[in-house]
Amino acid sequence: MLSKFQNHISKNLSFLKGKKLLLAVSGGVDSMVLVHLLHQLQFDISVAHCNFNLRGDESNGDEGFVKSFCKKSGIGFFVINFETKEYADLHKLSIQVSARQLRYNWFNELLEKEGFDFLLTAHHLDDSIETFLINFTRGTGLDGLTGIPQQNDKIVRPLLIFTREEIENYAKENQIGWREDSSNASDKYLRNKLRHKVIPVLKELNPGFSGSFLQTLENLQQSESMVDDASRIVYRKVVEDIDNQKKINLSELMVLPNYQAYLYQWLKPFGFTAWNDIYDLVEAQSGKQVFSEHYRLLKDRNTLILTEKKEIDKEVYAVYEEAENSKIPLKISVCDKGDITFGNKDCIFADKDTLKFPLEFRKWEEGDYFYPYGITGKKKLSKYFKDEKFSLIEKENTWLLCSENQVVWVVGKRADRRFSVNEKTQTIIKIELK
Amino acid sequence: MLSKFQNHISKNLSFLKGKKLLLAVSGGVDSMVLVHLLHQLQFDISVAHCNFNLRGDESNGDEGFVKSFCKKSGIGFFVINFETKEYADLHKLSIQVSARQLRYNWFNELLEKEGFDFLLTAHHLDDSIETFLINFTRGTGLDGLTGIPQQNDKIVRPLLIFTREEIENYAKENQIGWREDSSNASDKYLRNKLRHKVIPVLKELNPGFSGSFLQTLENLQQSESMVDDASRIVYRKVVEDIDNQKKINLSELMVLPNYQAYLYQWLKPFGFTAWNDIYDLVEAQSGKQVFSEHYRLLKDRNTLILTEKKEIDKEVYAVYEEAENSKIPLKISVCDKGDITFGNKDCIFADKDTLKFPLEFRKWEEGDYFYPYGITGKKKLSKYFKDEKFSLIEKENTWLLCSENQVVWVVGKRADRRFSVNEKTQTIIKIELK
Repeated sequence: MLSKFQNHISKNLSFLKGKKLLLAVSGGVDSMVLVHLLHQLQFDISVAHCNFNLRGDESNGDEGFVKSFCKKSGIGFFVINFETKEYADLHKLSIQVSARQLRYNWFNELLEKEGFDFLLTAHHLDDSIETFLINFTRGTGLDGLTGIPQQNDKIVRPLLIFTREEIENYAKENQIGWREDSSNASDKYLRNKLRHKVIPVLKELNPGFSGSFLQTLENLQQSESMVDDASRIVYRKVVEDIDNQKKINLSELMVLPNYQAYLYQWLKPFGFTAWNDIYDLVEAQSGKQVFSEHYRLLKDRNTLILTEKKEIDKEVYAVYEEAENSKIPLKISVCDKGDITFGNKDCIFADKDTLKFPLEFRKWEEGDYFYPYGITGKKKLSKYFKDEKFSLIEKENTWLLCSENQVVWVVGKRADRRFSVNEKTQTIIKIELK
Repeated sequence: MLSKFQNHISKNLSFLKGKKLLLAVSGGVDSMVLVHLLHQLQFDISVAHCNFNLRGDESNGDEGFVKSFCKKSGIGFFVINFETKEYADLHKLSIQVSARQLRYNWFNELLEKEGFDFLLTAHHLDDSIETFLINFTRGTGLDGLTGIPQQNDKIVRPLLIFTREEIENYAKENQIGWREDSSNASDKYLRNKLRHKVIPVLKELNPGFSGSFLQTLENLQQSESMVDDASRIVYRKVVEDIDNQKKINLSELMVLPNYQAYLYQWLKPFGFTAWNDIYDLVEAQSGKQVFSEHYRLLKDRNTLILTEKKEIDKEVYAVYEEAENSKIPLKISVCDKGDITFGNKDCIFADKDTLKFPLEFRKWEEGDYFYPYGITGKKKLSKYFKDEKFSLIEKENTWLLCSENQVVWVVGKRADRRFSVNEKTQTIIKIELK
């Protein structure tokens, strides 16, 4: 008769059959049960063991234990030794985070190099309960309360619906040996407190707690899928995705009484955390902005514009007539009168004698003005932007081509008439945006 | 300087100003702080105190304490004595549930009789944390993790964002007296375990736990509002609400990979709990059904039909020519040839001599047949229903009018030709559906 473990794996994880599987095995009870089960069910498995060298002989004992088990059972065995402490010091990381980075970097390498299809880990239901409680203790949202996923991408966790107790009982009943894997636990202090102080009380109050927790997770996962649906539906209506910008139409969004929920949902993946500032931004005047580590959210009239955070380029690049400059997206050539075309904003024609090379290629600055081709008089750039209803982002992205600091071209937008071709022009210069 | 309590109330609960408020006051620290605060801020308050007579002198001591405080402060005071134990025995309820029923029944009576606008209770943040953990321990969904609402309908909880500790400190600093309200706690055993064993560990692991819990609640409430949005949007697309029936179009619903989440969301309010049965029903054959206490969900071709659970009426009602019968929705009268109309399904005309009064009015049964007006031969009712594509619900709701157990009328649908008016008819009977 098959155990409930074998049943579960045969029924729900049949997609692993015939695949090349790498098992992360510390030597603890969870991973030893996992390797036994899959070996028994004749899955195509190999074992990967990390020796973090954090507990001297004990660490080496774990390694030897897993190695000899694999040898005896004819299971492929990969092992690596990490100088975890040194790595942590070097990168100024905690031991936990270091061990995690080292481990997963190596697993990914192995997956790729050896052509494994999946990495299997022995996470179980109590890990999920602990993760739930850790997130809850720290403060979280729905996404922090939906448990460890049974699969994300190439990582699969076949034991996730079983409790630690069930796994230990199975190991005892089937005489599966293991070693206590004290170094394996991340967030050790937190987890131990929850494991020994909190979870036993919950199980005392509800002896069926593990089962009802599984149901709770399922309910919350369903709710999360509906949150995703709502998020997607409303996003399609009020957000315009163009040119690495996302433009959130506030007049449409704010019809919803819970518009903040949508902003939270959309902006969280971009690393924003200052939610009150963002909610204030909605009512703020144009030009106000809020930053995350890599992104910026800008209020611009009745929109919020999300873009990557970029330093404004303050450099002035010299543009020579002859040489192509890979930093500057302009192409300069001499041409005939017959080559002149109109209506292409990415190209201007200038009278060479009016230009003084090298020209300067730089960002717009407050105070710049020009003599727009086609109208009389001069105009401040700021006035021009306003008349053309440029967004703040568009203004920031505007480059000027100047000659002796006089604007020749608001690049891609408008030429200056002082440099334009006329009947006296002897040499025509064509300047194109590449 | 105003305290943070007064600030909070002035800022966020200004809608209570000028309203007639009833405060539920046990005499414990929470409710005594609440009454002090609102009295100080000159709200229009009265106090309601329940004496549950569960702790003898102690209960009477509480009553006396609250009463004399109100007298001294010039606050209106209502009191009631309950024989809680007797009520619990009589109704076979727990003491907790009994106390709750008695209390809220009385509060509602007072609100109505005395014209109060709101009932205020002194629930605080720790109550919310405990409620979260109780639901979590028992197993729940998102709705069980969004905390106690600050307001639902006429009940308002002004202290909900403050911790028990903050409230106790305020009472001490302001020399507010109180009595330990041991009977006030519902779910006492559970709450005490969580209060003394679990929550202190969470606060040890995160000293800012109360604040992050408030943020968690807000995040979860926002998610819940998005779940509601998704639910409503999809409901409008796939559910037809007609005649006390909700018809869920499965072919449209099941395009969604997470259709179960929607079924759960829509059906939960109708008391369903057997979710796996419901998810199986989706794939089951027509006629299968799942019941909650008051509702039934029926698979009918590619729909699920939700209706109230009704016993099928097996009675046969006698229909007399003369008397109006209030139980029977038919009106019978004699009429002239000139009165005959066509095309009204709610009305037939019959030859009186073919009928034998009293007629019988009853539900359709397996085996019934009739001679449909307008075609030759006879037809089984079951065949007729099938041809007309009647749903199971429509079949169940179909009444027959019979004469000597021969079908005269499939009521509201089709007449039988054996009883129809012809040139030999002497008296015409008009039978109308009221």
